[in-house]
Amino acid sequence: MNKLNMDPDSKLRIIPLGGLEQIGLNITAFEYGDSIIVVDCGLAFPEDDMLGIDLCIPDVTYLKENLDKVKGFVITHGHEDHIGALPYILREVNAPIYATKLTIGLINRKLEEHGLLKTTKRKVIRNGQSINLGQFRIEFIKTNHSIADASALAIYSPAGIVVHTGDFKVDYTPVYGDAIDLQRFGEIGKKGVLALMCDSTNAERQGFTNSERTIGRIFDTLFSEHAGKRIIVATFASNVDRVQQIINTAHKYERKVMVEGRSMVNVIETAQELGYIQIPEDTLMEIDQIRNIPEEKTVIITTGSQGESMAALSRMAQNIHKKVTIKPNDTIIFSSNPIPGNEKAVSKVINELEAKGAEVIFQDVHVSGHACREEIKLIYSLVKPYYSIPVHGEYRQRHAQAEIAAELGIPHERILMLHSGDVLELSAGEARVTDHVQTGSVYVDGLGVGDVGSVVLRDRQRLADDGVVVIVMTLEKGTGQILAGPEIVSRGFVYVREADELMEDAYDVLEDTLEELQDKGVTDWSKIKAALKDNLSEYIWRSTKRRPMLLPIIMEV
Amino acid sequence: MNKLNMDPDSKLRIIPLGGLEQIGLNITAFEYGDSIIVVDCGLAFPEDDMLGIDLCIPDVTYLKENLDKVKGFVITHGHEDHIGALPYILREVNAPIYATKLTIGLINRKLEEHGLLKTTKRKVIRNGQSINLGQFRIEFIKTNHSIADASALAIYSPAGIVVHTGDFKVDYTPVYGDAIDLQRFGEIGKKGVLALMCDSTNAERQGFTNSERTIGRIFDTLFSEHAGKRIIVATFASNVDRVQQIINTAHKYERKVMVEGRSMVNVIETAQELGYIQIPEDTLMEIDQIRNIPEEKTVIITTGSQGESMAALSRMAQNIHKKVTIKPNDTIIFSSNPIPGNEKAVSKVINELEAKGAEVIFQDVHVSGHACREEIKLIYSLVKPYYSIPVHGEYRQRHAQAEIAAELGIPHERILMLHSGDVLELSAGEARVTDHVQTGSVYVDGLGVGDVGSVVLRDRQRLADDGVVVIVMTLEKGTGQILAGPEIVSRGFVYVREADELMEDAYDVLEDTLEELQDKGVTDWSKIKAALKDNLSEYIWRSTKRRPMLLPIIMEV
Repeated sequence: MNKLNMDPDSKLRIIPLGGLEQIGLNITAFEYGDSIIVVDCGLAFPEDDMLGIDLCIPDVTYLKENLDKVKGFVITHGHEDHIGALPYILREVNAPIYATKLTIGLINRKLEEHGLLKTTKRKVIRNGQSINLGQFRIEFIKTNHSIADASALAIYSPAGIVVHTGDFKVDYTPVYGDAIDLQRFGEIGKKGVLALMCDSTNAERQGFTNSERTIGRIFDTLFSEHAGKRIIVATFASNVDRVQQIINTAHKYERKVMVEGRSMVNVIETAQELGYIQIPEDTLMEIDQIRNIPEEKTVIITTGSQGESMAALSRMAQNIHKKVTIKPNDTIIFSSNPIPGNEKAVSKVINELEAKGAEVIFQDVHVSGHACREEIKLIYSLVKPYYSIPVHGEYRQRHAQAEIAAELGIPHERILMLHSGDVLELSAGEARVTDHVQTGSVYVDGLGVGDVGSVVLRDRQRLADDGVVVIVMTLEKGTGQILAGPEIVSRGFVYVREADELMEDAYDVLEDTLEELQDKGVTDWSKIKAALKDNLSEYIWRSTKRRPMLLPIIMEV
Repeated sequence: MNKLNMDPDSKLRIIPLGGLEQIGLNITAFEYGDSIIVVDCGLAFPEDDMLGIDLCIPDVTYLKENLDKVKGFVITHGHEDHIGALPYILREVNAPIYATKLTIGLINRKLEEHGLLKTTKRKVIRNGQSINLGQFRIEFIKTNHSIADASALAIYSPAGIVVHTGDFKVDYTPVYGDAIDLQRFGEIGKKGVLALMCDSTNAERQGFTNSERTIGRIFDTLFSEHAGKRIIVATFASNVDRVQQIINTAHKYERKVMVEGRSMVNVIETAQELGYIQIPEDTLMEIDQIRNIPEEKTVIITTGSQGESMAALSRMAQNIHKKVTIKPNDTIIFSSNPIPGNEKAVSKVINELEAKGAEVIFQDVHVSGHACREEIKLIYSLVKPYYSIPVHGEYRQRHAQAEIAAELGIPHERILMLHSGDVLELSAGEARVTDHVQTGSVYVDGLGVGDVGSVVLRDRQRLADDGVVVIVMTLEKGTGQILAGPEIVSRGFVYVREADELMEDAYDVLEDTLEELQDKGVTDWSKIKAALKDNLSEYIWRSTKRRPMLLPIIMEV
């Protein structure tokens, strides 16, 4: 670092409220004096063990406790893992949103769906522009990513400058707009940067990420090779530049373009409204017109590139799509790579498509939106930060960035591997984690936000593994005599036809237990319940090696 | 094909009883006249949607219906997806087992665990040897694979010869024993082969699979680079040659070897007993002696290379392993690639290990055990089959092999893409699917085999998604008057503290429903249950957008 314009008493606090342990929940608070700004506000899709959960949002208890300080949300780009939680968090932390045009456009769609447009202030910022929020000044810097209008942020505070890259790559020949503003990174670096928070996603990958433009050439080749066939391209809805290139190639080969999948239609509409995509006249057609055009003169752009079971392509593959039927004359191009965890789902869709006779192309029609090792080195070399704070990635990826930082000469004690909730205090020449605030995933299930926690999930896991067995009986008030039952009702435990003998024996176990209790004069309900549960549970484990959830219910008359 | 020694009236039937749609359940029946032989008998681990299932075995109804014809099980190699279902299937289809020495050794361990050693005939066959089983003669042919002692089979019947490759690769420089017997493939090909059933696993991959021996050199480099550190290597337990190479390198660098993980210990014991692994004296140590040796003089070979949550390495990563604690001075080598579907689990373990300061090496320390495209072409060119029947792979992989066969000049009508259960009848110059027999996955859950079916799984899914709500009440016999209840008990539905208001309203819904039914004079239990269920379900959906399983239970006094 060149120099640090820092008041020795001034303290900047950086608090990642998610995104480190909770991948996807990207949200970071920057605090100085009476001011907090929040960078990004993402959601995550549930892990396999979060049964029944629709999505996860960050726990923002810290922001709720410091509501009066929060000056605004500053958003780096329009991906779900950076904007998706806004409609939920805004209900509790209402503050203005600042972002570039396309990002605000995508946020607006969300707020509209949730009825929050009127109550939320939004402001469009151009890259290159700065805003003042309390003690902070935030400058938006043009970057490249797999969605247009992405920004890095230079966050100026009395304690120094923090550069946050957002999600980025270095694309010297982007499809839309300018290349990343490397000059500005250098200029700010020259001023002296306290800390760099840099995207780690591809920090394990050697070299440089290819330009988005290389994919255009691949589409060109593929379209020319598959002249007589219908072409279906699956890609990420939000990758507007990718869609633009598909449309360009379709236009060149005189094909009509149809768009399938709700999120794809939404993003293209927004991008078109705001001028981020140029569609030649008479190129776009409604999917309903599919029968009116020779199929070798059509391209369908669709969602489902990750094998998502309800997405358009998956429905086509399963023959349950209303308008598109896969035929041997189809060429399906996956312009995407499977995100880790989706490999099997994608493979399933490929199997189904090929089994219908279609040709499937699924390799090398994608480039990443994230910087590889050499690009990360470039940014470090321009910014020359005093501290390195690897962000946006699993531990292994952030660790890989830490190694890059060390290779570039940043001393180990100035490379800060944070955990979500850490309160990092930066003051003259010192960086310390001084506190830890509450963070985590809040589960959204249907309309409920936060009403499903670990107890409910543990129960769901048990129910999922071995089902439920309910034991009911009615006792006489006072005497405790059995008037009805015990009855056993089970679900998800064992196939009924196979269960007859098992159930007979189970009834015997209950009868024996009750007799024994009666002989001992036990009338305490909780004791009766416990004994029934224990004995039946033991019998079931012995005879089946399963542990269904047992629910004893006693009624009194 | 050169010539076909075939009686024009003789019919050979090939029936894949699993393994095509049910990946893992490799089992194929070959039938001629009064004789059936069964090739392989594998198990599969459950898919994500098979909640609570421990493992899957093939449905062998067809064999049970033709018990008197079954002459034996012929096993190509000792992997779980080829031998794992034997202990279950043998109980219903008891027939002798034929396989090479190591394969029988691994099968014996299984049979012993299941108490089936005494009742099952096993016979060790050498590669190169033939056996007669009813109308069939079966020749075992030496191949290479990621487990020693793998065989291809030449199945001679009056209708012609079928060559079944088993799982194979071409390794000119194997670690143990000979290279694949390419000469014999050529010689049999020269006789005229009716059909080739060839492994498709890597049919999508270009080129040749590297020799297992290349990994030895990589271990050498890694051990020399990490001289001062403890080394932990995770790999597949059954890859005896891999383990041999780790031991060789350990010996060279004067390290002691410890083995962790039950399946790893088992396989090494069996391999050592049977002479498939050579361990220099004083090299192997008990894990309990770990404290007595300087850590830079040790290597731990462990299970868990697929991120399996209960395997040794995962337990070390989570700090719950009793004997091994991960430290910054550890280098952990994943000598494996994640099997599709395991990527996230492996990544989780890598994160945990790196977070403890250990170095993790997870790339390029593995070669596949399956043939790539050029090896598949080689086998086709030696065998020159009349029919091609791609086996062992998902549809996309078998389809890729079909394309290779077509490239090599086999006409499309002689490339047979089968489905599990298809009865393929081969007679002079004709191949037809003439019938379809029952096949599928039978679920093993605890001690139960086949007692969990689709209804139980559907219930488990519902329970997993939104939990269970039980409604109980006691009615008076005759009058139908309510004596107790309704009571509501829920599990896995919603966190209790959040549920209070919801539950109060739910009780109101039940009361209203019961009043309405009473006014209408409804006393039929099934109608009462249905009404309670419908109304409560509708209320819950409206207020939470969830659909828990509703269980109304009525008792009578």
